[in-house]
Amino acid sequence: MNHYLRNCLYLAALVAVVQLAVTKAAFAGEGIGTGDLGVVIERAAGSLRVLETTNNRLVSRVEGLGDLSHASVVYSRDQRYAYVFGRDGALSRVDILAGTVDKRIVQSGNSIGGAISQDGRLVAVSNYEPGGVRVFDSATLALVADIPARYGDGQLSKVIGLVDAPGNRFVFSLWDAGEIWIADMTRPDEPRITRFKNVGRNPYDALITPDGRYYLAGLFGEDGLAMLDLWHPGRGVTRVLPHYGRRGEKLPVYKMPHLEGWAVAGTLAFVPAVGAHEVLVIDTNTWTEAGRIDVHGQPVFVMAQPDGRRVWVNFALPDNDTVQVIDTETLAVERTLVPGPGVLHMEFEPRGEEVWISVRDRDVVKVYDTGTLEPVAELKADKPSGIFFTARAHRIGL
Amino acid sequence: MNHYLRNCLYLAALVAVVQLAVTKAAFAGEGIGTGDLGVVIERAAGSLRVLETTNNRLVSRVEGLGDLSHASVVYSRDQRYAYVFGRDGALSRVDILAGTVDKRIVQSGNSIGGAISQDGRLVAVSNYEPGGVRVFDSATLALVADIPARYGDGQLSKVIGLVDAPGNRFVFSLWDAGEIWIADMTRPDEPRITRFKNVGRNPYDALITPDGRYYLAGLFGEDGLAMLDLWHPGRGVTRVLPHYGRRGEKLPVYKMPHLEGWAVAGTLAFVPAVGAHEVLVIDTNTWTEAGRIDVHGQPVFVMAQPDGRRVWVNFALPDNDTVQVIDTETLAVERTLVPGPGVLHMEFEPRGEEVWISVRDRDVVKVYDTGTLEPVAELKADKPSGIFFTARAHRIGL
Repeated sequence: MNHYLRNCLYLAALVAVVQLAVTKAAFAGEGIGTGDLGVVIERAAGSLRVLETTNNRLVSRVEGLGDLSHASVVYSRDQRYAYVFGRDGALSRVDILAGTVDKRIVQSGNSIGGAISQDGRLVAVSNYEPGGVRVFDSATLALVADIPARYGDGQLSKVIGLVDAPGNRFVFSLWDAGEIWIADMTRPDEPRITRFKNVGRNPYDALITPDGRYYLAGLFGEDGLAMLDLWHPGRGVTRVLPHYGRRGEKLPVYKMPHLEGWAVAGTLAFVPAVGAHEVLVIDTNTWTEAGRIDVHGQPVFVMAQPDGRRVWVNFALPDNDTVQVIDTETLAVERTLVPGPGVLHMEFEPRGEEVWISVRDRDVVKVYDTGTLEPVAELKADKPSGIFFTARAHRIGL
Repeated sequence: MNHYLRNCLYLAALVAVVQLAVTKAAFAGEGIGTGDLGVVIERAAGSLRVLETTNNRLVSRVEGLGDLSHASVVYSRDQRYAYVFGRDGALSRVDILAGTVDKRIVQSGNSIGGAISQDGRLVAVSNYEPGGVRVFDSATLALVADIPARYGDGQLSKVIGLVDAPGNRFVFSLWDAGEIWIADMTRPDEPRITRFKNVGRNPYDALITPDGRYYLAGLFGEDGLAMLDLWHPGRGVTRVLPHYGRRGEKLPVYKMPHLEGWAVAGTLAFVPAVGAHEVLVIDTNTWTEAGRIDVHGQPVFVMAQPDGRRVWVNFALPDNDTVQVIDTETLAVERTLVPGPGVLHMEFEPRGEEVWISVRDRDVVKVYDTGTLEPVAELKADKPSGIFFTARAHRIGL
């Protein structure tokens, strides 16, 4: 009996020591770096996949995220948490290291994207229903500020084009009101709002330049872009590119292009035309049109490689199986790729060596080498749409 | 006995289950995000401090890194490992999560900085003794390629200004030979070298623009900068800014300025003058001088906030207690700060809300709010010099 007891105690002690070693490893910094991680939205399933770009693989699946059509993602400044903005008004904080939903709230009836403040402490969501912006503590998801988008006789406007800007500000546009607002969150519980009225009819999407200086909103109701210089808000909103837009709806528009991915190479910006099979070239010194490039279909995203050497374009139906690659110097289409039906999004690895492309209707994400323009990996995913890498944590406006 | 045996097995099973749970936690992602981490070099002690920018604190100290005067750091693409280039020819791979030296080699007698390839798989070191570049596997630190900087009658040149460039290339300059070389590492064990001769006497430092397109080397032996357009290497090296330099050594130069931190705001670059109490303003459309700004002393680093709104400048002896902040639009000095004696380096948080400044002779690192220009934290460190945040993992040329 003594013999058994001794062995038993040895065994228990041994297991305990092993356990202690493992525990210590966990808290002394075992784990992994988060710089090469990201997520792919699986829109139909309401899930996302955590991905890793060093070995080009999909890791965990995180489920139960609700309606992820048109979902978008921002990251905590430590790159551990992905904030997922669902179409159904849900805001989820996903721990990408653990592969779990850390916190989740339903904060409105219908939302359309969000942003994280420069200091990382606030997450804002732009809502259709009820119209406005709600701001949450990024650690707890507790409501910090409610900003109803009130206009006219007290109506609430749908809000779109919400971005973060330097100075811990959020900037957004009011679809129904035709306004642009700046919310200065220096005192988070008392946002200081600056309103710009009559910026144009029905702003439908917006972007901020990578330096956080210029905010530009596309207008669904008229031509041109509404531009706000955030270095000089006192100068008000001006109209630039007067010919940008639907041009009197001469063409059917299958999908309004996204403005997020404006490609800047040197002093040129590359912008999807609305309705036309063209990419517009803009001189950012003067904000005037500097050229047009004929492309395969109606462009949706026009995105620059991090080195600005090439611009990648995907297209609306019926051409959404194709991606074209444009040389930013010659302005010529250099290569036409056909990743497969339902190309919805593209994301470049931070230094630009590879680009990930979601091919929804083939249930795959393809990875292309940006040097050879050849595919190097193909990963199974369930109806993949948006792809978001953690490097966005370090970028203004993303 | 049966009773004891059963209890013993229960106990062992229980401990094993706990152990399994802990193991799973460790590998399913316990730990922390690495996006808000960085290191500060403690040059005299040969150690570094791991830091964290969300709560502005110094975490672990990592010792035994040798001679860290003029040390620099690059990061693995997952942001877990810092590669530290010591002056004594040592290359150390530091696990910043664990706070330990993961691997360390002494690869030459005297080295002066390094770079990590676009794909993150190769780390290169530029050596004074013996002159050349050595390239290592970033995971194992095994030698992959040796590139002696041979010129003339077989002499070896000191190598400086080593940077990474898109296309998995390294670019560097040969001090003694007056040459610039490109090493294309597409096949890592067979680097393809392109040489540019007679670029100017004694290139002493170099930089690459944030898009990875232009490589510019400062010349100690004559005026002007040697510029290589990496989109068009066939056009060769040209001389720009013919008046940049020591201008016939009219002024004593207390410290050759660093070129790394060229500040780009819109189409302007801000560059430390050599010897003079001036910051030069360069039009990057034409690479011509667009102005000069009088400053407090001989500038060393001229660094732009990530939003390009302001440029921060530190100075050589006897003015190295001061930092000046320049408005990039008015080109006026907006504020003169006196952090303390021995201001050696500055690093902006990735979205620019705060800047960390090392004050060597007071043994502190100070953190300033870039909005208010006021200090918000002061952290004890042993003779701090270079500060390097993990966001550099995602930037071309850093």
